[in-house]
Parts: sequence; C-alpha cells; structure tokens
Amino acid sequence: MSKTKLTIGIIGAGRIGKLHAENLVHHPNVNLKIVSDIQSETLFDWAASIGVPKITSDYKEVLEDDEIDAVFICSPTNTHTSIIREAAKAKKHIFCEKPISFDIEGSEKALKVVHEEGVSLQVGFNRRFDHNFKKAFELVQEGSIGTPHIVKITSRDPSPPSEQYIKSSGGMFMDMSIHDFDMARYVCGSEVTEVFVHGVSLIDPVFSENGDIDTAIISLKFANGAIGVIDNSRKAVYGYDQRLEVFGSKGSVIVNNDHPTTVEVSTETGVYRDKPKYFFLERYKDSYIDEINYFIQSICHERPIICDGNDGLQAERIARAARESFVTGHAVKLESLNKSARPFSLG
Amino acid sequence: MSKTKLTIGIIGAGRIGKLHAENLVHHPNVNLKIVSDIQSETLFDWAASIGVPKITSDYKEVLEDDEIDAVFICSPTNTHTSIIREAAKAKKHIFCEKPISFDIEGSEKALKVVHEEGVSLQVGFNRRFDHNFKKAFELVQEGSIGTPHIVKITSRDPSPPSEQYIKSSGGMFMDMSIHDFDMARYVCGSEVTEVFVHGVSLIDPVFSENGDIDTAIISLKFANGAIGVIDNSRKAVYGYDQRLEVFGSKGSVIVNNDHPTTVEVSTETGVYRDKPKYFFLERYKDSYIDEINYFIQSICHERPIICDGNDGLQAERIARAARESFVTGHAVKLESLNKSARPFSLG
Amino acid sequence: MSKTKLTIGIIGAGRIGKLHAENLVHHPNVNLKIVSDIQSETLFDWAASIGVPKITSDYKEVLEDDEIDAVFICSPTNTHTSIIREAAKAKKHIFCEKPISFDIEGSEKALKVVHEEGVSLQVGFNRRFDHNFKKAFELVQEGSIGTPHIVKITSRDPSPPSEQYIKSSGGMFMDMSIHDFDMARYVCGSEVTEVFVHGVSLIDPVFSENGDIDTAIISLKFANGAIGVIDNSRKAVYGYDQRLEVFGSKGSVIVNNDHPTTVEVSTETGVYRDKPKYFFLERYKDSYIDEINYFIQSICHERPIICDGNDGLQAERIARAARESFVTGHAVKLESLNKSARPFSLG
Amino acid sequence: MSKTKLTIGIIGAGRIGKLHAENLVHHPNVNLKIVSDIQSETLFDWAASIGVPKITSDYKEVLEDDEIDAVFICSPTNTHTSIIREAAKAKKHIFCEKPISFDIEGSEKALKVVHEEGVSLQVGFNRRFDHNFKKAFELVQEGSIGTPHIVKITSRDPSPPSEQYIKSSGGMFMDMSIHDFDMARYVCGSEVTEVFVHGVSLIDPVFSENGDIDTAIISLKFANGAIGVIDNSRKAVYGYDQRLEVFGSKGSVIVNNDHPTTVEVSTETGVYRDKPKYFFLERYKDSYIDEINYFIQSICHERPIICDGNDGLQAERIARAARESFVTGHAVKLESLNKSARPFSLG
Repeated sequence: MSKTKLTIGIIGAGRIGKLHAENLVHHPNVNLKIVSDIQSETLFDWAASIGVPKITSDYKEVLEDDEIDAVFICSPTNTHTSIIREAAKAKKHIFCEKPISFDIEGSEKALKVVHEEGVSLQVGFNRRFDHNFKKAFELVQEGSIGTPHIVKITSRDPSPPSEQYIKSSGGMFMDMSIHDFDMARYVCGSEVTEVFVHGVSLIDPVFSENGDIDTAIISLKFANGAIGVIDNSRKAVYGYDQRLEVFGSKGSVIVNNDHPTTVEVSTETGVYRDKPKYFFLERYKDSYIDEINYFIQSICHERPIICDGNDGLQAERIARAARESFVTGHAVKLESLNKSARPFSLG
Repeated sequence: MSKTKLTIGIIGAGRIGKLHAENLVHHPNVNLKIVSDIQSETLFDWAASIGVPKITSDYKEVLEDDEIDAVFICSPTNTHTSIIREAAKAKKHIFCEKPISFDIEGSEKALKVVHEEGVSLQVGFNRRFDHNFKKAFELVQEGSIGTPHIVKITSRDPSPPSEQYIKSSGGMFMDMSIHDFDMARYVCGSEVTEVFVHGVSLIDPVFSENGDIDTAIISLKFANGAIGVIDNSRKAVYGYDQRLEVFGSKGSVIVNNDHPTTVEVSTETGVYRDKPKYFFLERYKDSYIDEINYFIQSICHERPIICDGNDGLQAERIARAARESFVTGHAVKLESLNKSARPFSLG
Repeated sequence: MSKTKLTIGIIGAGRIGKLHAENLVHHPNVNLKIVSDIQSETLFDWAASIGVPKITSDYKEVLEDDEIDAVFICSPTNTHTSIIREAAKAKKHIFCEKPISFDIEGSEKALKVVHEEGVSLQVGFNRRFDHNFKKAFELVQEGSIGTPHIVKITSRDPSPPSEQYIKSSGGMFMDMSIHDFDMARYVCGSEVTEVFVHGVSLIDPVFSENGDIDTAIISLKFANGAIGVIDNSRKAVYGYDQRLEVFGSKGSVIVNNDHPTTVEVSTETGVYRDKPKYFFLERYKDSYIDEINYFIQSICHERPIICDGNDGLQAERIARAARESFVTGHAVKLESLNKSARPFSLG
Repeated sequence: MSKTKLTIGIIGAGRIGKLHAENLVHHPNVNLKIVSDIQSETLFDWAASIGVPKITSDYKEVLEDDEIDAVFICSPTNTHTSIIREAAKAKKHIFCEKPISFDIEGSEKALKVVHEEGVSLQVGFNRRFDHNFKKAFELVQEGSIGTPHIVKITSRDPSPPSEQYIKSSGGMFMDMSIHDFDMARYVCGSEVTEVFVHGVSLIDPVFSENGDIDTAIISLKFANGAIGVIDNSRKAVYGYDQRLEVFGSKGSVIVNNDHPTTVEVSTETGVYRDKPKYFFLERYKDSYIDEINYFIQSICHERPIICDGNDGLQAERIARAARESFVTGHAVKLESLNKSARPFSLG
C-alpha cells in the first residue's frame, strides 16, 4: 500500500537541517510539520518565512507526534545513535545525516534497532544523487568501462573549517573523507578491504594541534581486486574540487568539476575560465533535493533505500581504518578492525 | 514606496504561460491569483496541483480585477498588442512574451499607451538572465575585451516545430532569431544598422512551402562600427546549440554550451561526453526564474526594467529587416525600413 | 614510371621561400639544387648553414637548368604568372605560393600554359594539410555529419602586417581570407556561388588609408545549397585564431585552436591555460612539411595534385567577388564576375 | 672553452638507440660517427638510409675511437654499468638510457667512476623535456601554485609489453614507474622519503607468472612535507595516458593529455574527440629531440647536466623501495633501504 504524502519532522536545524527543511517544504508529497532544535528561539523567523508550522526545543515532541511518518536527524553526530534508536522504536522512518556516529559499535547497535523495528533508514551520502556522479556510477554499472581496475577520487574543500568545528568533527576521515569512502565503494561496486594513509598537516597548525590532519592520500584495496586512491585537502584556494575517475579494462570514466558558467575569456595573457562552484551548497544543491525525493519515494512506495544503514556503517569502518593507518603508519585490513575498540577520538 | 508582494495574473497558459505560473507560485513576493486561457477547461487539474486558486476563460476578468498588480501576457502573438493596450489602461504592469507583435506599427502604438499610462513593461528575452550570457555581457561591459569588433551567435534548435506552429510563428526571424537579435544588440551595446541574410530551407520542405526558411546566416552591422553574424538552424541533431562570442580590441569572450554532466568517457573508439542540454526548457530553466524575479523586484522597488518595450521593438525591427533582406537578396538598412509597411507575414 | 628523387629549385627566398627550403633539404626524395632571389647576396650564410649548394640572383638560371624537375615559386605575387608560364614551357613542375595572381585573367592564361605543357602545378594552400583541418575534411567526406548545411570559419591574425606589406598584399581578401575561401570550398565540397561582405577598419587607420579593411564578416552561398560565413581580423591579441565548423544534417564537426601545452592552472582568480599557438609558423609548421611531401609524392608517382591551379583560381574569384561586395555593398554572384575587369587593386 | 661540434657514437641500436640516431643525424652540432650493436648485420640498410657512416658489432670500437666526444648507451640495462665505467675511463661524456641499472650498488660504483674521470652523464628521463611537463615544472618553480602539497601522476601504457620484454624489464617499477618517480621528485623539488604500494595484476596473468604486476597505486612522502601518488597501468585501451597534477597552497597546475587533433564531433549520440596520442613515440617525440639537444649544449658549453647520475640513482632507489613495499605490504622508508641487498630481481 503506497502513501502519497508523508508528514515529516526535522531534529536539528543547523546549516544542513535548514537546507533539508527548505527543500522539504517545496516537495509535493511532504507535509513538514515540525522542526526541533535546542536553540529553537533563533528559528521562529526562519520557520515563518518558509512556512514551517511548528518549532520546538525538545526533539521528543517530534518522536511522540503520531502523525509524523519520518524524521530527519540533523543534530550533532554524538546524538545520532540514541535518537535513531528512539525514532525507530517510535516507528518513524529515518533520514540520518552522515556519519551515523563516531563509534562503530554504537552505529551497529542503533542499526540493529532499526532492523528490529522494521523502519527504513537512509544515510545522507548526497553525492550518490549528484548528476555527475550518478551518471558515472550508471556508466560503470552498464559495463561501459569494463571491470574496474582503479578508482580515483579528488575531494578538496575551498577553505578549512573553524577550530570549534574541527574539535567536534571526528577528524578529517570521519567528517570529510567519509563521503569519498562511500563514493569509492559505490562506484567500484565492491567493499574496501585495506587502507593505507599518508596524512599531513600543511595548511594550518590548528589541525595538528587538535590531533587532526588537513591533507591526505588514502590508498585503498577492494574485495573485487581493484585498487583506489583518494586525495583530500581542507583548502583548495580555487574552490571546491570534486573529481572522480574509474579506470577499467575497457576504458575510463571521469567526472570533472562543475563551473558556474561556460564562459571563456582570451586576452593577451591567456585563456581564462571561472573557478569551480564554490562549495557544497552550490555544487551539490540539486543532489540534496534528489536525495530527499528518493527517500520520500522509497517510503511512499515501500521500495528499498539506495543508501542505507549498512552503507553508513561501511564508510565509518573505512574511516576508522584510515585513522588507524594514519596513527600506526601501517596498512590496515578492514577485517582486523578491533570492534571493541573505544569510540573514535581525535586525541 | 516599495511593495513586498505583487498580485499577478497570467493571460494565456500554453507551454510558456504554464512555465511562468510554476515559477511564480514559488516566488516569495508573488501571489498568483488567476490564470486565463480560452481553453480554461483543460487547466483545472494543473492549477490545483500547483496551487493556482482561479482559472478563467476570459482574460478581461484578469484585467478587471483590482487586486492584480501585474499581468503576464503569454497568449498567441497576434493578441499581444490589444491586450497590452487594455492592460496598460487598467494600470497593470506588464510582462509580455516575445515578440511583442509581428507588426512594428502595432507594437509602437501599444508601447505608446504603456508609456502614457506609466506602467512598466518587460519583454521575455530570458536569455539576458542566463548565467552564461549574463556573465559574458558583464565582461564586455567591464571592458575585459576592449571595444567590440565582432559579435557571433550560434543558435540552433534540436528539432523543428510542427507545421501548425510554423504557420503562426511569424517565420524563423520573428520566432527564433529574435532572441539572437536582442542578444546581439545587448552584448554589443549598440543598435543594429544593417542586415544581410543568406537564408535557405535544407531540413524540411514544409518550411519553404510555408514561405519560411530553416537555416540562415544573418550578417549585421552595428552603429558603433562593430559587425556581427548569427547562424540559425531549426535542427541540430546533437541538441540545443547556444553559443556566443564577442571579439574585441583586447580579447574575446566565448559562451560555450551547457551540458547535463561533466562526465567524460574514454574507450577504444574515442573520448565521449554528453550532448548539450536538450532544449530551452532544460537549458534556460534558471533564466526563466531569474527574469521573472527581476521583473518583480523592478516593480516592487520601482526600478527601471532591464529589457523593456523598446528592446522588444528593436529586435522586431531587425527581424523585419532580415525578412526584407531574405526576400530581396539585398542588405537592408534599418533606417530605411518602411514603417507604414503592412504587418509582417510569411506569405 | 615513378621517380624516387626530384631535383628542385626555389625562386624567391623571402620568409616562405626559406621555410620551404629548410623543409626540402631534409626530404629524403629531394635534391634542393638552387635557390634564386634578387637579393641573393644576403642568402649565402643561410644557404651554407642548411646545405643549399647554389644561390643565384637570376631565376632564369633555375628554369634553364636541365636537371631541375620542379620549381617552387615564392617570389612576390605580381611575378607569379609570368614565371609560371616560363617554368611550364621549360617543362618544370610547379609549386606556386598563394595567390597565383591578383588578376584572374592573368591566372587563367598562366594555367592554360601549364595545361598545354602537361606539367603539374600545386598552389600553396597549406591548411588543407593541417592535422586538424585534414581530419575535419575527412569526417565530412565520410558522411559523419551528413549533408553540410553551414560552414563557419574563424581566421584571425595575432598582429597586423606593416604598411609596406599591406600596400603590396592585394588587400585582406586576396592576402588573408584567400586561405579561408579555399578551406570553405574544400570542406563544403562545393563551389561558392555568392558572396556578401561586411568589412570595416577598426584596428588601425593604416588599412583604410590604403583602401583596405582589417575586420570582416563574409557570408557565402554554395552550389550545393549550403551557406557559410568567414570572420576575419588582422589582430587577435590572444594569438592566431584558426577555427572551423561544418554543421550538417547529422551533426557538426568543429576544429578548435592548437595550444602550445595542455597545462591548466587553477588559482584564487580562476582557471587559466595558455594562448593558442602564436602564428602560422608555429601553428602550421607540420602542414608546410606535409604539403611539400604531398607535392613531391604526386610528381614522383604521377598522381593528381590535391590542390591545383583551378583551386587557386576559384579562391581568387571568391576574393574578387568579396572585394566587389565590399565596394558596392551588394551581394555578388560569382557567375557575374566581369572577367575582363581590370586586375585587382586596392585603390 | 666551448665546442661547436661533438662527435658521437651510439652503443645499442634497438628501438630507442635508433630513435636517438635519427635525431642526432639532423642535429647541427653533431657528427654521428659510429653505431655499435651485437646484431650489427641487421643495421646496414638503416644506417645508409639515415647517413650513419660506420656500424660495428663491438662497442669497444666506439670507446677506443679518439675522435668520439660522447657516447649514447642504449644497450640492454644489464650492460649499462660496465659500459659506463669503461666509457668514463675513456673520457667520453655519457648519455645513458634509463634505468642506469637494476642494482643500486652497481649504479653507485659506475657513477663514482664518472665522477672521478670528470665526464658528464645524463640519464634519459626525456619527460622532463616534454613541452607540457616542462611548463608545469616551471610554473611550480615560479611559485604559481605556492608550496606543493600533493603531487599526482597518472601514467598508463596503451598496451602491455611481450612476455620476453617483461622478463628482462626489471619489473613495472624499474621499467615504467621509474619515469614517474623521476617526475615526482622533479616537479615536487624534493626527495621521496617513503613509499607504499598497492600493486595488483588485473590485465594478464603473464605479469604475476613472472613475479610482476600490471596495475599499481604508489603513495609517496617527500622530504619537504608534501605527499604524492602515482597510478600505473600497463593497459589503457584508449591510449597512452600521461597526466600530472601539482596541488599547492596557492592553487594547482594540471597537465592533460596531448591529442592528435582538436577536432570535436557532435552527433545524435554525443560529443566525441580523438583518443590521446597513441604511445611514447608519438607523445614524447619532441622531448627526445630536446633532451639530446640539451645534452649536446651542456657538453659544448660546459654547463651542468639537468638530469644527471644522481637523478638516475634516486629514481632507482624509489623503484627499489616500491618493490619492497609491494613484497612486504608495508610502507618503506628510503633511508632504510638495505644498500648491500642483492641486485633487484622480479623472482
């Protein structure tokens, strides 16, 4: 039995929570009923301007509302797993921002509850829904490039985050590279089995002072025999650099950057074009719309989720292995990850 | 005194009228109150789905509604001038689709009423608001390429229209090239003074059977000394081809096509990428949003219109001269256009 | 009966004569025996350095040498036709630089002698042998883009010639556009039937003072129904701009500029690449080698010439029509060219 | 005291020895006097056709000729070090093909003799002289991209070598990646300090059967703090893939592939261009000319060599470390390389 309209609540209205809200209010199959945030008092004007009827400071109000079909969990990462468990028990479908948690065991326990309660959960790996990466994925799936041999991802932010953000980010692997870990598994169509990291801090000492890095090359091995590499930087002065290549037995598919315009200027000093789209809000604008639409259609039509809890978990495991490789200087096999290890920490 | 919200009515709900309606309902400063179309009975479901409260078959109902601040005239071209006159007399601001009319005298008379009544009128040359063309225009304005010497426009449709459309289109110059005539004047920053046309029918005899052509090279001379050329085709099998170049004393600026993705595939047979965005609905999607936003902001804040009645008129005059050049085989000076000539006709 | 080695003499050792000499001395099937130039005294060091055994100031010495199989005529244009006639009578095969002459009747008479004497003559339209244009030509020939509808050529020099050069150049159409006229006929596979020109002088008054122009848009009609346009400028500050497009019923083929490197630099201010190759010596370097190789192989193996006297003549006729269109302001049909008109002159 | 002409002998006339010979005979400052090869009988026709006066099967004849200023060592790698030592003792300047040897100790001993005898030695890392890579190097040197953070090299052959070649190649790192190791050091301006390899055999079991691999991701750490990655494949079906990126604090410089033409074809199925230049003979043609010219000018004008014995040695050390990392599965520090280890072997 398929539904035509979902009543939705959002938990956490920072930058990404607001973004989802603004997309959800325009969705024809959505009734965005309530948004919760501990700083609810700052949200009233915003809520009125986009047409959210109710704001609360208590997320439990969202979960206790019987009309709510699904919740978007956009609160700080360290609150995710407990809210997931509560939401699942309240029989709400769940869209959870990445990462699920910094703690693989915690993620596993939460996903177990999700499974037991029979609700759906999608993790916010929005890049899967991007026009470019989606096309590349499809071409690989169709066999256009044969068997994948090498996966290459370039992912560089235009400017580093604040120290406050760094402290609670979970570190570059959990916060930033995790998107690339998901993309690597996704386009390669295979699980990562081994990770080796060369990570350094070259941009700002604030990273190393907080036990973090700002620049990395992450070498991957996949179960299907392919190998891969991700290069990350927290600061590409020319803008958000988001590229991908899958090289295979029959060719290669490359995703180049999106630019604001196609304009090309030729003068006495050279030929110029504009920089790539500045950052994720510009670059991935449509992917955020498409990922929530996908989630909504999956729930309404009872179809499987494309990017589910296990996807979230696997990306976290790679992030964890990357961290271990960085700390130890050795390649780390994912099967050897100590599951009972303490939760991930930068310290 | 600036307004924050405009009440708007749409006259004519064909493809373009519907497009404007769908954009207007999402605009925060707009109350789209009514849409008129002679085939009103076909519109009820559509109106309900996007949230238009009222549908009528009589456009006068729109003009007689005192709450309406502005009207969008999207009815067939041969109805434009009389509706413009009536709307202006009813003190409505006007957004009119291109061309204003097929009849320069008629356009002039209508614009005279607009002027007398003191309302604003914007013509639907949406390409001025396109991200690429806007950037090119700005670069020329800033002097990046010095004094313009040569303006080149390529404008080719992906597939020809139906015979019915051709018959009422006003011919290729009035229907299709008119966008290019406006763009040529706009980016060159100067009026066209002379036109010469090499026009042929190579795609389908239906064009010549209706006194029309499907392929043209239109050579232009501008008042500022620059020269220009437009090439048009009704059928580019690889998609909508929309390019521009302004070449000047200090360099050149080029607008290349937009593509759906940046994906590049290399195989044994070559390197491939996708075709340009298919047609105007895909290619100029955002420009339609931006042109109406511009119109609304101009009205609300009592600012001058960027693309006004005179712009519409000048483009029509060039189209008229192009037709005359095609028919006579001679270059036609715009100052010599016989203003009292009979209205434009393909016959 | 095919030969394996040709003995060659060069008449005229200005820039282009020297270029041919330097390529000929390396050709395995060529014995470059003699070079004549009225300023022979300036050539001895150059000749010694590249290994030319003999220099003379009298071109008749070249023609009277029984060992000489073929001559390269690289002297000033106004000497071409008389030397062609003499060379043909001396049974020398002829490579003649473009244009054959400024005087269509003179060219016709010279070609008649060539025909009567049964020698071969190739005209120096080197761009036919360029890697890019050759590929485009082949693709059109193979039907990759269907029937040609529109031919577009952009041809802009990086910097204007000296006044002395302008005076003896024959004007922009004869000197510069003539390459484009040949290319237009060649890639379209059809003769030009009508020409219309918008020509202006925007770069330097020296052009208009000498009855010449520096900027033009030349609109063409072809016998096969296609239409075309050439845009020329004497000064593109960003370098030599040499592009081509053939648009047809099944697609389009585009030749973009060659650049010195593929290097792309991204910084805070944009994405940069180098300018196109500076001028014809850099851009068409290999085409000069390939055109003489083609000539030599044609002579050695008694194969037809790819770019013969008639090709030279037709390009001159288009140049003549272009001049007439520029002077009269009218479109000029090539069949109406007054053959008995006085020789071409800028005055 | 600078010389204007060098007398040169070549030792080894396989593919690369012949290539150098063909370039040397055209060099104005070179007298190519003699070529030795153990299969000298196969070379007489070739030598006659390009103008090499003398062929011998005994390389000692080259070294004993007092007129010879410099030798090109193009014989099999396992003969390099002994010939280098002999040539240096015979006071010949040396151009030696890469790698110097498969045995770092052997290379070091040979270079010691070169040093003692005071002759010059250049190693054949031709890519340093390529127009694209040279430009990228210069831009990095000039500070255009600030301090290098990440160096990325893609280097993929169009088709794998024969089994016979594989057996004597020294393995992928010594044979193929060694060019990339040199380029990485060169553009980064710093020594490699650590190497980690993910190497696999995905293309053909012949590689693993011979203890070799065909696909690799090689992660690097540099002394200046930068990190880098090379990806190699023995088979890119779309042609020779030779790209580079240096990303730094102020931007990035990218080298894209060279293509035979700039032609772009748009049809109903997409937009196509040709594949990259097929292989090293096409892609690096000019770099081979430039590297020998550089060597000759350095000798003639007693200038330092740009790419000397130490450069050859460092690249070999990285190859050795890469092999060790592949075999052990660990990251390998270059300072820990056991110098007394047995010569490199695939077994």
